Amino acid sequence: MFKNILIIGFGMIGSSIARSIPKSRKQAHIYAFDKSKDFSKRLKKANLNVSSIKSLDDFKKLSIDLIIVCTPVLQYENILKKINKFNDQSFIVTDVGSTKKNIEDIYYKNNFKFRFIPSHPIAGIEKSGLENGFLGLFENRYSIVCPLKNSSKKDISLVNKFWRSLSMKTEIMTAKDHDHVLSLTSHLPHIISYSLVLTAIKKEKSLNSKLVKFSAGGFRDFTRVAGSDPEMWRDIFLANSKEIKKLTNMFIGELKKFSNDLNLHNSKKLLNKLQKTKNIRNRIVKAKQAGKFIPND
Amino acid sequence: MFKNILIIGFGMIGSSIARSIPKSRKQAHIYAFDKSKDFSKRLKKANLNVSSIKSLDDFKKLSIDLIIVCTPVLQYENILKKINKFNDQSFIVTDVGSTKKNIEDIYYKNNFKFRFIPSHPIAGIEKSGLENGFLGLFENRYSIVCPLKNSSKKDISLVNKFWRSLSMKTEIMTAKDHDHVLSLTSHLPHIISYSLVLTAIKKEKSLNSKLVKFSAGGFRDFTRVAGSDPEMWRDIFLANSKEIKKLTNMFIGELKKFSNDLNLHNSKKLLNKLQKTKNIRNRIVKAKQAGKFIPND
Repeated sequence: MFKNILIIGFGMIGSSIARSIPKSRKQAHIYAFDKSKDFSKRLKKANLNVSSIKSLDDFKKLSIDLIIVCTPVLQYENILKKINKFNDQSFIVTDVGSTKKNIEDIYYKNNFKFRFIPSHPIAGIEKSGLENGFLGLFENRYSIVCPLKNSSKKDISLVNKFWRSLSMKTEIMTAKDHDHVLSLTSHLPHIISYSLVLTAIKKEKSLNSKLVKFSAGGFRDFTRVAGSDPEMWRDIFLANSKEIKKLTNMFIGELKKFSNDLNLHNSKKLLNKLQKTKNIRNRIVKAKQAGKFIPND
Repeated sequence: MFKNILIIGFGMIGSSIARSIPKSRKQAHIYAFDKSKDFSKRLKKANLNVSSIKSLDDFKKLSIDLIIVCTPVLQYENILKKINKFNDQSFIVTDVGSTKKNIEDIYYKNNFKFRFIPSHPIAGIEKSGLENGFLGLFENRYSIVCPLKNSSKKDISLVNKFWRSLSMKTEIMTAKDHDHVLSLTSHLPHIISYSLVLTAIKKEKSLNSKLVKFSAGGFRDFTRVAGSDPEMWRDIFLANSKEIKKLTNMFIGELKKFSNDLNLHNSKKLLNKLQKTKNIRNRIVKAKQAGKFIPND
């Protein structure tokens, strides 16, 4: 397995990866590169047994065999260009980005040559920063692996094994399929959450402190999703904007129909709609993907 | 304080009230009336020290001094008519309904005479049924109390004290203000969640099992809200349909603007929007109304 791992972009996800690499493999050395302020000081304080590197230009001295890119997705092109400069087959590159087609396009457009197995471990919390990462974030979650046309079976298997060593399940998918699925299960929920909070902000003056006080009736759940890292999400929205736009329109149509049934006081139809949705929740709970919410903690 | 309490509609909320009434007051006897199948058997099994009554027509034998209505809101009119038959000032009636203006209207329209202090304890989980109630549901949450024009100060104070004895904070509000605030903090989030899940159901065939597997990226949070009791929510939507419709339109406008910024790849504006929303989340956490989410439990 991998001996020297470089994590580029060492925020909540990056540091959770470092924390989750199993102890038996801790002889593997982890390096981290991050542009944020006071990074090396903060890294030291976190006491993670991870070495910071100052520049991406000199990582080759370190015999890295796995690079994991964990920055917002619109920073990838610059980073991958630097990696490609070494024109070297001694390391594999993977990532954690929430969009995959745009990343694949960058690779082909630039005619990159390094071994690249794009990935997306589906796990996250609304807090960002290396201090908020934790061991266990990935446990029992899925990592989607999206090999390129020229990826070798061996490399795919190595990256799969890496995610499984963090207690994840893996699933192979094309970048296109990934973006299609995630636009529904992640990107649309986020654009909705942000828009609801923006609606609430507009109404807030007339509500005074009441918005926060009485948020436990549902609103607070949306603020959690809408509390996610702004730069990361701006990049995701821009990178998958076509799929997101299509789905947003479909969702608006559904909402208008609902509102119309309300207008017509169509009691039977409404009840039927509300009953349908419960079934999906039950399946998510059964698949152990629901997480746990403690309402009054 | 109250000696004999009757809870009408003994589901998740009703049973959580029974569980949360402090022990020092357990000399107070709790009665429950519920139309659901096998109710008395299920109540017995739950071992709550609550007596079931068979019919609302004979509760007067029991010297009840507090009635708490906990049914879906469109059942109120029939129930309150039965209560009014006794034309009696010996008990106070309160409730837990998520809409308040329609309930006030029912009271005035029918020229009811009993002492009525409508309330709404803002607390809930997505599970329903008496078996899912628990001690602690109300802890540190707000209960909104919406007195009628003719409510006496003494009655208002008694009902306030009752909610506080369940470890709640209370706030007095008009029914109109209540419905205005809750349409934003609760009703709109619910109609959005249901509509998102309905959108997902339409897409599901093309996604096979992927919707459930990869729900941890945001979608699962919506299924929790959309997993709430269908009858209860149909009634809320119908009872506050005007406010909800207005807000839904406002929200659709916000979503369209967002989608438009995406279309124009308006990167700066997008980032600015996403940064704005984080602030509200922080305030909810500070006010201890956020609950706690364990992502991988």
